[in-house]
Amino acid sequence: RKTYRIAAIPGDGIGNEVMTEGLKVMRAAAARFDIDLDFVSFDWANCDYFLKTGSMMPANWKDLLTGFDSIYFGAVGWPDKVPDHISLWGSLLKFRREFDQYINLRPVRLFEGVPCPLAHKKPGDIDFIVVRENTEGEYTSLGGKMFEDTDREFVIQESIFSRIGTDRVLKFAFELAQSRARRRLTVATKSNGIAISMPYWDERAHAMGERFPEVAVDLQHIDILAARFVLQPDRFDVVVASNLFGDILSDLGPACAGTIGLAPSANLNPERLFPSLFEPVHGSAPDISGRNIANPIAMIWSGALMLNFFGETAGHQRKNFREAHDAVLLAIEQVLRNGPRTPDLGGAASTSDMGDAIARLV
Amino acid sequence: RKTYRIAAIPGDGIGNEVMTEGLKVMRAAAARFDIDLDFVSFDWANCDYFLKTGSMMPANWKDLLTGFDSIYFGAVGWPDKVPDHISLWGSLLKFRREFDQYINLRPVRLFEGVPCPLAHKKPGDIDFIVVRENTEGEYTSLGGKMFEDTDREFVIQESIFSRIGTDRVLKFAFELAQSRARRRLTVATKSNGIAISMPYWDERAHAMGERFPEVAVDLQHIDILAARFVLQPDRFDVVVASNLFGDILSDLGPACAGTIGLAPSANLNPERLFPSLFEPVHGSAPDISGRNIANPIAMIWSGALMLNFFGETAGHQRKNFREAHDAVLLAIEQVLRNGPRTPDLGGAASTSDMGDAIARLV
Ligand SMILES: CC(C)[C@H](C(=O)O)[C@@H](O)C(=O)O
Ligand SMILES: CC(C)[C@H](C(=O)O)[C@@H](O)C(=O)O
Repeated sequence: RKTYRIAAIPGDGIGNEVMTEGLKVMRAAAARFDIDLDFVSFDWANCDYFLKTGSMMPANWKDLLTGFDSIYFGAVGWPDKVPDHISLWGSLLKFRREFDQYINLRPVRLFEGVPCPLAHKKPGDIDFIVVRENTEGEYTSLGGKMFEDTDREFVIQESIFSRIGTDRVLKFAFELAQSRARRRLTVATKSNGIAISMPYWDERAHAMGERFPEVAVDLQHIDILAARFVLQPDRFDVVVASNLFGDILSDLGPACAGTIGLAPSANLNPERLFPSLFEPVHGSAPDISGRNIANPIAMIWSGALMLNFFGETAGHQRKNFREAHDAVLLAIEQVLRNGPRTPDLGGAASTSDMGDAIARLV
Repeated sequence: RKTYRIAAIPGDGIGNEVMTEGLKVMRAAAARFDIDLDFVSFDWANCDYFLKTGSMMPANWKDLLTGFDSIYFGAVGWPDKVPDHISLWGSLLKFRREFDQYINLRPVRLFEGVPCPLAHKKPGDIDFIVVRENTEGEYTSLGGKMFEDTDREFVIQESIFSRIGTDRVLKFAFELAQSRARRRLTVATKSNGIAISMPYWDERAHAMGERFPEVAVDLQHIDILAARFVLQPDRFDVVVASNLFGDILSDLGPACAGTIGLAPSANLNPERLFPSLFEPVHGSAPDISGRNIANPIAMIWSGALMLNFFGETAGHQRKNFREAHDAVLLAIEQVLRNGPRTPDLGGAASTSDMGDAIARLV
């Protein structure tokens, strides 16, 4: 029987607090569903480590993580200590890119018990998934500055859309859409304004669409698409987007479903050549860190996505892993409905109260 | 007494229908407030013109529009006839760029009588303005493709942020924020992911902020900022953003306030070296065009912004222009409250019914 080796990297701020609860629930689920998990914690990839050593991670971080099946990641960033673009490019964005985690999966759901900022929505009305390209696109450090310190100064920023990178995320999204009941895929674009990369993206989407005749595809410009998340969130099933557009939509989607405090994410290398990474969408929230009031659900839900991913091999899903995922989700649903609730959901429970309750239900 | 010369360009689809109502209301306001407007209509900058001639506008379009104080613009685009990136780059985006309309102003307001998709919001809770950079940034056709038709194919897309372009939009936004009661400015960024242009944008924003100590500035990443439009729209006063982020936020904002069908915009060359352009944010909506059911309010409100802009000279606002603007807005408010309403607002009135009602109130 395989033991899954998981690198637990809490990172900064509330990353540490929610990690404790995530581990608690993962251990409970593993025990109940006969899954062997072996967690190893690492105390780098955080801003204090940077202040001590001058870099976010040890030089041999890749070696240190080799052989792990996944990274269970808290949150990174503490702008008062280290600027975000340094802390993030030195850790999270490195993992995504160097471990070729080219799919960022972000489910969006409205739960009972979570106040929804949209009027007249009930659980079930919002239930879709954002598939975000996670390694290229608009997130690059290519480019530079010219005529520095003169009035003619300008910077160029490059975005890169490769055929491989574009096709593989589209393919993943089409396959996912095909496997779901509604078989609807929305492709985020902006080809009417961004004149090189986005027409290319559209062209690849059309080409991929021909291989999936059963999927109803719909290209939408990001401006109107963002508006429709608010106006008609029930229209969406699977949404595929570039790195930047996926980033925006996967904060906006959860906001429409109540709070980004619950949103999980899976950064996948579907071929399993490298560890995949599972993390909450929320950040490290320095302002509330250390007070045991952060909501741990995004971390716990991310763990559920990890178990589910472990269970998928060669196109087939092992039953106990799927059940473990579903049990964690059910426990989350119950706690959201009946409490205990952390202050962000209007309750007075602590991070650990909520984690304990979910672990107990699992 | 100056006569303002206005080029009326209806464009495609419902652009034509809403233009009729816009002209009607502008003429009513001009008569009442002693303003001399001279409208000249042009039947190019539309997709049929492209199909006839092979280009969106005559070669001498710039000469044809020289001497006009502004362009009153409907909407352009009809994807079944001409791909959007051709029709838009050949008209609207050309105006914005070649007439150096570097400010795109987009007010967002929740009106009484307009159903709001956000729960528990009342008129007054949403009232802010998006200042969008309108000539550079992410909207470029610079870049290209390499290794075409092989597996190694990729495209590069360049974004350009010039010091002049960045500083002038920031300055405009700071000045606007300073002139308002709340004096709050939110700067949209994504410097934690887009590693060259966005840190530069932040740096220029910080530098400009030092010249406006009375303005409370707040830099927010576009992902969380989009989420906050939904979760806490009352927090915003003036929001300044790059071309792309401004595009997204100025559809998302109006969606949060009920519908993008009402949203107006002003594409300004503040120095008045070139005509400015006033247009609804909504597009040409081929699906409902020709049926006299489109909501003309965005077009009419855009006209009000035009009158207001005409009235501002050398930092001073002429009274009758401001009053004309306010009278049009008041008429819009009344019609939204009491009807007649077009189908998008749940009524059965026609485009012209609504235009007539507003013109009568003015
Ligand atoms: C049609 C399109 C090119 C345009 C833009 O993106 O600027 C529109 O969405 C707008 O906001 O005016
Ligand atoms: C922190 C930041 C770099 C990151 C991103 O933009 O990818 C975050 O917003 C996310 O969505 O995971």
